[in-house]
Amino acid sequence: QFLHAGPPIAYADMCGPMKGAALGAVLFEKLADTPADAAALLEKGGVRFAPCHQFHAVGPMAGIISPSMPVLVVRNQSGNNLAYSNINEGLGRVLRFGAYDEEVLTRLHWIQDVLAPTLAQVVTAEAPVDLRSISAKALQMGDEGHNRNAAASALLFKELTGRLLVSALSPEIVASVLGFISANDHFYLNLSMAASKAVLDSAAGIPDCTVITAMARNGVEFGVRMSATGDAWFTAGAEFPKGLYFPGYSENDAAPDLGDSSITETAGIGGFAMAAAPAIIGFVGGTSQDALNITREMYKITLRRNMNYSLPALNFDGAPIGIDARKVVDSGIAPVINTGIAHKNAGVGQVGAGIVHAPMACFVQAMQQFLSQI
Amino acid sequence: QFLHAGPPIAYADMCGPMKGAALGAVLFEKLADTPADAAALLEKGGVRFAPCHQFHAVGPMAGIISPSMPVLVVRNQSGNNLAYSNINEGLGRVLRFGAYDEEVLTRLHWIQDVLAPTLAQVVTAEAPVDLRSISAKALQMGDEGHNRNAAASALLFKELTGRLLVSALSPEIVASVLGFISANDHFYLNLSMAASKAVLDSAAGIPDCTVITAMARNGVEFGVRMSATGDAWFTAGAEFPKGLYFPGYSENDAAPDLGDSSITETAGIGGFAMAAAPAIIGFVGGTSQDALNITREMYKITLRRNMNYSLPALNFDGAPIGIDARKVVDSGIAPVINTGIAHKNAGVGQVGAGIVHAPMACFVQAMQQFLSQI
Repeated sequence: QFLHAGPPIAYADMCGPMKGAALGAVLFEKLADTPADAAALLEKGGVRFAPCHQFHAVGPMAGIISPSMPVLVVRNQSGNNLAYSNINEGLGRVLRFGAYDEEVLTRLHWIQDVLAPTLAQVVTAEAPVDLRSISAKALQMGDEGHNRNAAASALLFKELTGRLLVSALSPEIVASVLGFISANDHFYLNLSMAASKAVLDSAAGIPDCTVITAMARNGVEFGVRMSATGDAWFTAGAEFPKGLYFPGYSENDAAPDLGDSSITETAGIGGFAMAAAPAIIGFVGGTSQDALNITREMYKITLRRNMNYSLPALNFDGAPIGIDARKVVDSGIAPVINTGIAHKNAGVGQVGAGIVHAPMACFVQAMQQFLSQI
Repeated sequence: QFLHAGPPIAYADMCGPMKGAALGAVLFEKLADTPADAAALLEKGGVRFAPCHQFHAVGPMAGIISPSMPVLVVRNQSGNNLAYSNINEGLGRVLRFGAYDEEVLTRLHWIQDVLAPTLAQVVTAEAPVDLRSISAKALQMGDEGHNRNAAASALLFKELTGRLLVSALSPEIVASVLGFISANDHFYLNLSMAASKAVLDSAAGIPDCTVITAMARNGVEFGVRMSATGDAWFTAGAEFPKGLYFPGYSENDAAPDLGDSSITETAGIGGFAMAAAPAIIGFVGGTSQDALNITREMYKITLRRNMNYSLPALNFDGAPIGIDARKVVDSGIAPVINTGIAHKNAGVGQVGAGIVHAPMACFVQAMQQFLSQI
């Protein structure tokens, strides 16, 4: 069984990048020898699929997690629950954007054979890394925890370097692992996502609670889960982000909104913490005043200010957390999401970045279901 | 000959922390065996002193640089001139705050014997580190380059780690050097200062140019240099910073404004780039709106916006650079400085952080001298 981003979807209905990533995972798992054989296997239904969210996991973009892929494990200490994510592959031609060539598969095997076992030696349940501390510091350093993770990745790099240098691991392995992490300013993204998932899972299944516990995109549909309605998904067609495109690309190249990374917004960071990251405006478009206004708007649909995640530009107010479906429907304000934009075809990769809003229909459905239960 | 921070000052006139640092440097240089002997040597005039600035150098706080201390070398590529600074010792009991006990001297010897030679192997004139790039990124990450250097220090750490891991140096030495740098969020400060000095020295000695090329404090006097008047110092009594004190300390414990670190403001960062670092407000006092207003005010006394150093919170406008003594005198707006606050007694260390303004009298004198030359 393979996991994918967003609400449930059959292989035949998947968008281009997700099909490409599934194909790559078939090759990675050695279930087929050639892309043609892999496609044939997938088309005849030879692989079962389920959402990452069904297994307390999250994956950026296509979000394909196959059985042999190592995962990051995040523990929510207060809820004592676990959440998982795959390991970020970096930018360019990578599986999560639907690429499946030799370079992609070689990197995935190196992550499996070298990176993951190395990290597992220095980060354990007994010696965990404090992600809340890193995320809190990063929000003081221009990150918002979704589309910008430069500071958190640098802080994590410092932490891992300290551990690896006093380990008994060979200098060559340490150098290769740290070189890989150092080159990827988004390395922390998957940890930010898994930490967000761990927080939100502890809020799931509370009677009468209309807090949104997941927002996720499979590239065709946008889905949300609400606390009181448990694992049910409320879906609507995924929208196209508005943003800036890399040179040579335009809106015509864009896939619809894709990936589980909107779990960060669900947990009150990412787009909800735009005020922390005015530098991201240069990447998604707008003015630095827009960044403040976006966060201010999100206070109107959330229940609390998370004082663990303080926003310097809003005079250290806490990030807006706890999206209340009632407030969303009442106010007509849809949750904002900062997102990368994938090319609509498998394997091309990221073509831009922008801002998108969750479809209002998801929240209306969730509230209708909730009201029908009472 | 020992170098010290700020404009020229005789040993007898120095403030407590500077006297303590001079005493520590005598012990470090083995010119005396005990603190009592070192003090006697200093009191009878056994050591000659000169400002760091006289030798294209800058030092934070007391700024004592003695002959055996290693220095960082920064090249201004466009001016092809060099500037120097000592190496940051970290926080707590350190020489620059006037401490001179065994722990301080042991650390200075380790910097001399291990840290500096190690860095010299991986950072050379042929393989320099691009400080402008690091500083520019750090200004997008909540640093202002004077009182907050967490991001720049982390980015430099990544760069040095990459170089050290592929060097032939022993893993133990690499681990100790990186451990030291990792533990000090101000490690980059001295590089930020030397880079600022390198920029400003290339603007010195231009006829009719009333740009300020140095602002520096010796703990008794505040001094400025202006381009047209070359090496002349224009001085006034150093003021006391207004700010927040660490628990257990108050204004009664503060030394007057001290150190060459105001070279960062002279080069348009530090307090001039407060808008980049709202997080520093929690350290020096005020609101995040104050941070924006302080930078906006500094545009009124500067000649240019430095587009190499873009400020996200001001919609990516450039940092205000080129303090014009004419504009300072005409507007009555004194340059702002973010600063650490030292205890008035030698060796206690930092007791707070705050904001201070350069004394207007310095700029009035500079303009009077300039006008008398015409």
